[in-house]
Amino acid sequence: MLNFTYHNPVNIVFGKGAIAELPKLVPARAKVLMTYGGGSIKRNGVYEQVTRAMRGRSMIEFGGIEPNPRYETCLRAVDLAKAEGIDFLLAVGGGSVIDGTKFIAAAVSYQGSDPWGMLLDSSRVPANPLPLGCVLTLPATGSEMNGGAVISREATREKLFFVTPQTLPQFSILDPETTYSLPPRQVANGIVDAWAHTTEQYLTYPADAPLQDRQAEAVLLTLVEEGPKALADPQNYAVRANVMWSATQALNGLIGCGVPQDWATHMIGHELTALYGIDHAQSLALVLPGVLRCQKQRKRAKLLQYGERVWGLRDGGEDARIEQAIDKTERFFRSLGVSTRLAEYKIPREAVTLVAARLANRGMKLGEHQDLSEKEVQEILAQRE
Amino acid sequence: MLNFTYHNPVNIVFGKGAIAELPKLVPARAKVLMTYGGGSIKRNGVYEQVTRAMRGRSMIEFGGIEPNPRYETCLRAVDLAKAEGIDFLLAVGGGSVIDGTKFIAAAVSYQGSDPWGMLLDSSRVPANPLPLGCVLTLPATGSEMNGGAVISREATREKLFFVTPQTLPQFSILDPETTYSLPPRQVANGIVDAWAHTTEQYLTYPADAPLQDRQAEAVLLTLVEEGPKALADPQNYAVRANVMWSATQALNGLIGCGVPQDWATHMIGHELTALYGIDHAQSLALVLPGVLRCQKQRKRAKLLQYGERVWGLRDGGEDARIEQAIDKTERFFRSLGVSTRLAEYKIPREAVTLVAARLANRGMKLGEHQDLSEKEVQEILAQRE
Repeated sequence: MLNFTYHNPVNIVFGKGAIAELPKLVPARAKVLMTYGGGSIKRNGVYEQVTRAMRGRSMIEFGGIEPNPRYETCLRAVDLAKAEGIDFLLAVGGGSVIDGTKFIAAAVSYQGSDPWGMLLDSSRVPANPLPLGCVLTLPATGSEMNGGAVISREATREKLFFVTPQTLPQFSILDPETTYSLPPRQVANGIVDAWAHTTEQYLTYPADAPLQDRQAEAVLLTLVEEGPKALADPQNYAVRANVMWSATQALNGLIGCGVPQDWATHMIGHELTALYGIDHAQSLALVLPGVLRCQKQRKRAKLLQYGERVWGLRDGGEDARIEQAIDKTERFFRSLGVSTRLAEYKIPREAVTLVAARLANRGMKLGEHQDLSEKEVQEILAQRE
Repeated sequence: MLNFTYHNPVNIVFGKGAIAELPKLVPARAKVLMTYGGGSIKRNGVYEQVTRAMRGRSMIEFGGIEPNPRYETCLRAVDLAKAEGIDFLLAVGGGSVIDGTKFIAAAVSYQGSDPWGMLLDSSRVPANPLPLGCVLTLPATGSEMNGGAVISREATREKLFFVTPQTLPQFSILDPETTYSLPPRQVANGIVDAWAHTTEQYLTYPADAPLQDRQAEAVLLTLVEEGPKALADPQNYAVRANVMWSATQALNGLIGCGVPQDWATHMIGHELTALYGIDHAQSLALVLPGVLRCQKQRKRAKLLQYGERVWGLRDGGEDARIEQAIDKTERFFRSLGVSTRLAEYKIPREAVTLVAARLANRGMKLGEHQDLSEKEVQEILAQRE
């Protein structure tokens, strides 16, 4: 096991009716900016629940944070927060709203001229961003219980991230009932996203960490069981609760304690989203099988373990089982309705070289050995046509 | 899944050489009281590591906190802390030292006449105990990452606990190398303790919480694999690390999120320790098989799941598999060298009625249904002769 630190002070309030706890969680005298996305919370009752719980408190709103939240949009919220003297941010939505709100929280306190600098170097995130809390409505990114934020810049077609403990939410409210009305595409995307977060921390090489391995497999097995049910039976509370808690556990740092991590799928996927506008989870479903296949010798031991424990693959030769495990992964994504091929997203062949070149130019070290070459990234994408 | 809150802000610093991080974790100007136990830390180098790391800091010592830390001893430390104007406690040891230190931290700020009141009612723990940090040397109780403390009172032969977020450590340092020199009895006790913590939260009834079930099974399976190795190969770093992290995960609140909990084994066991002086883990190894057998109808579904997933029991009738699962549990404890019968500990037959009566008199509600009768407690113990 590698040395690690684990420090996750986010207060999780989970369950039916949990939004009513808001007044106990938001500081009493805070001037609050409530942030949200495209307005689905006004149709599914969450906006109503939040404003009712916050009645009598000082709170203004900023709506319109997009999926893959945009730098340009967040900067408008920063101006509003400064002008209004906001001292607490309440993000109501999914990972994009929460990520955007983390960026806003940090940018309000940022001293330099261009807060984009924080996305180029997490150490530039100021020591004391505005405090924030979350009401999660879309289980997917784990942003509700981690300090990461991914922001997209329209002007340069860049999608970059920071990760820092300073932007950990003070609390996150997770009420599975808020997810009943999600469109199937978002439900499926959330399952794929949680899956990829888990495999980025699990499908690397053995590191004498059997507990973390099993904690990761616990998430994957639960997603295999409960994911399809969430699509088939959207108002099943237990299923929604299990998917929600699994997505949080997939990226709150726990399963990554003391083990090597990959993240190549995410880095390649971010470029595809930035360039071609596909959903984040679509990019992961597309890239992940390619990363596993191209790296199957180096990931051999873990792929065999994954095949056996997650997919029950015990018979046949090792190479065949590895192929089956990768194939089952792709089929699982497809069974949820998420496409897995470049052509299905009408992404042109030029993406193969363009994405690899962009990552190489950025000097990013990819993979658990931090050594994926530009050519290897090309190979990963070429086989996804 | 039941509604829950999960809020665990303990900063875990895990790995080889982690004690050197102490100066970054203890507030720079704090006047520190270092607490420890019987002096093993002076023989195994931990005392030396801690004092070296804290060189130049203001720190005094209080040694001699016993296994099953005594109220009377802790009160002496409270007097010392008050007299010296201590503002930070550093617990160096196992669960007993940490539990005792939590009690000291709370008792220093306690306003009433007798701080024993906190053990009768956790809500009497003051809002602002002294802050504390830990250097863990014995994986077992999980006290390093929870807010619980169990204290024994010599005068009345009572062993009671409080659980409160106020006494969560600010940080805990876990260096697996500090456990190399533990006597086999303490290693075995630690494994049994972590096991029982897990089953108290897992072996109840199904609650639509498949992720938490698997997270609990992850701990149990790791203990089955790694526990015997820790005894056979004491200086195997990976094994020690896995046992240490498993024991922390067994009682940091995570596997208990949203599920019913039992704790009858602990409550009955505490009485045996208070009356007859057996080790805490010995009491658990003794009582747990009895609780499972006497409650096997009500725990039926989870016992079958436990048998299959932890012990690989898939063949034969359900009743037979349940018996086998309980039998394997007891054999596992015995394989570690921990006895499981009253007679082996020379505990007299009167314990059967005495313990049941003490619990009944205290009005404690036992079991996941909170309805174990005095007669049922007698039955549990009677079959452990």
